Amino acid sequence: MPDIDKAAGAITTEVVESFRDTDDPRLRELLGGLVQHLHRYIREYRPTLEEWERAVEFLTAVGQKCDDTRQEFILLSDVLGVSMMVETVNEQGGGTESTVLGPFHVVESPARNSGDSIDLMGGGTPCVVSVRVASADGSPLAGASVDVWQCTEEGFYDVQQPDVQPLGNGRGLFRTDGEGRLWFRTVVPSHYPIPTDGPVGALLEATKRHPYRPAHIHFIVEAEKHRPLTTHIFVANSQYIDSDAVFAVKESLVVDFPTVDDQETAGQYRVTSPFRMAEFDIVVEPETEEAAR
Amino acid sequence: MPDIDKAAGAITTEVVESFRDTDDPRLRELLGGLVQHLHRYIREYRPTLEEWERAVEFLTAVGQKCDDTRQEFILLSDVLGVSMMVETVNEQGGGTESTVLGPFHVVESPARNSGDSIDLMGGGTPCVVSVRVASADGSPLAGASVDVWQCTEEGFYDVQQPDVQPLGNGRGLFRTDGEGRLWFRTVVPSHYPIPTDGPVGALLEATKRHPYRPAHIHFIVEAEKHRPLTTHIFVANSQYIDSDAVFAVKESLVVDFPTVDDQETAGQYRVTSPFRMAEFDIVVEPETEEAAR
Repeated sequence: MPDIDKAAGAITTEVVESFRDTDDPRLRELLGGLVQHLHRYIREYRPTLEEWERAVEFLTAVGQKCDDTRQEFILLSDVLGVSMMVETVNEQGGGTESTVLGPFHVVESPARNSGDSIDLMGGGTPCVVSVRVASADGSPLAGASVDVWQCTEEGFYDVQQPDVQPLGNGRGLFRTDGEGRLWFRTVVPSHYPIPTDGPVGALLEATKRHPYRPAHIHFIVEAEKHRPLTTHIFVANSQYIDSDAVFAVKESLVVDFPTVDDQETAGQYRVTSPFRMAEFDIVVEPETEEAAR
Repeated sequence: MPDIDKAAGAITTEVVESFRDTDDPRLRELLGGLVQHLHRYIREYRPTLEEWERAVEFLTAVGQKCDDTRQEFILLSDVLGVSMMVETVNEQGGGTESTVLGPFHVVESPARNSGDSIDLMGGGTPCVVSVRVASADGSPLAGASVDVWQCTEEGFYDVQQPDVQPLGNGRGLFRTDGEGRLWFRTVVPSHYPIPTDGPVGALLEATKRHPYRPAHIHFIVEAEKHRPLTTHIFVANSQYIDSDAVFAVKESLVVDFPTVDDQETAGQYRVTSPFRMAEFDIVVEPETEEAAR
């Protein structure tokens, strides 16, 4: 229908043009592009008014499900692969790969010293995680901040179980030593379902998708004059490692957590034997001159 | 960067594929298309993580601004031209043009009889609105339901002023008579700003857009075996008729509201003279066989 095409094109032009006086050129660019893509989507898929109303109701419910410890819009972004796409286009290559922030970085991690335990519950099997932070050329980065958060062996973050877990369980904000190293005691996190009691859960159900994420530990690494890095390490062989509900698995981020059965090593790390142990490097990229400006 | 392109393409494929088991084929189609367009937008405009976080915060705030009488997501859809685009792609041609529903159809209109007044406040200048509903071939449609809502001469809907206006002021649900006609007494609505005390208002401010809509009266017309129609009539020469904040003006919907200074006609319509008068036809399309199935 050529008349509809003409009318539709005129609307897009008018809306994009309405942003012409925006002071911030980047905001103008992002809004203009968003309008063009949204309008193209509507022209291509022709949603009915009822479908538009359902979309409005859905987005409203997503917003209303959010509170201090629940971020349903991040969940939505995650299950649509939007979060992972944003991470991917910001990847610079060379360093450790990034992955999604996820919706549970909602409270500040308590400052802890290398060697501390982030398991405040006394989980079943102890685990030692040992990290070395380096720059792209391999040189260790001392004094880098490493923010860590993970769920319990039962698959829950502290904020999901305020009556069971103390706030800060599974969380720690560390600094690397002179050799770029830090380690901490914890438990091996479990695979877990993303929260399904909200509209995003209803979406997964309507599309027959499972809500599970494979077991992982979150990291945000910030070192001076380097680009910050948001990533996970995934526990090798975890259930759902091939079908993460939020599409965040990258092969390079999968790490072995072998069982160590050795009293002497256990003593060094102040855990009981046998225990699980993960060791890996995180490499961050120097800021480019452009980014540093 | 070809590697990023490859990784990004793989994510889109994986997400679209994740919807493969959705029972409802239309839901599968709409979600797959949405994911493809959103991902393309991200690849083209490369939002930073900070920009993504701001978008999440903005959408969350939009959802949290909604309540029983405030629909901020419809406002957002409106100011981005999304609502108007959805109306446009659903236009079938032939009948009266449609336009946006807007965010104020949030309460049921009280049933009224032809000739009733929807002005429960006693506004300044009386106005008579006379409508004839017909099918595409010109034949009058008796018993059609006509839902009407409008703001006051001051530019506010009842739900915006619960302490000033009785609920139902400016609203009426009418039925056409045997000749397809109905009329009602009211006031001429004013141009008005869409609500600016929420995140959508902040968006308009950041983009230096004004929030005003030209004066209009809303209609939803439903007649048996005809497609329902959502539209406005716009008051000719209203301020902002050329720059509606929600892009909803269509030339064919602009109607003259001349002043009538004639005691006899005023008496017929039970108003005082002088008064304003708008007369127009609304034409709805018969349902196609396909749509009727």
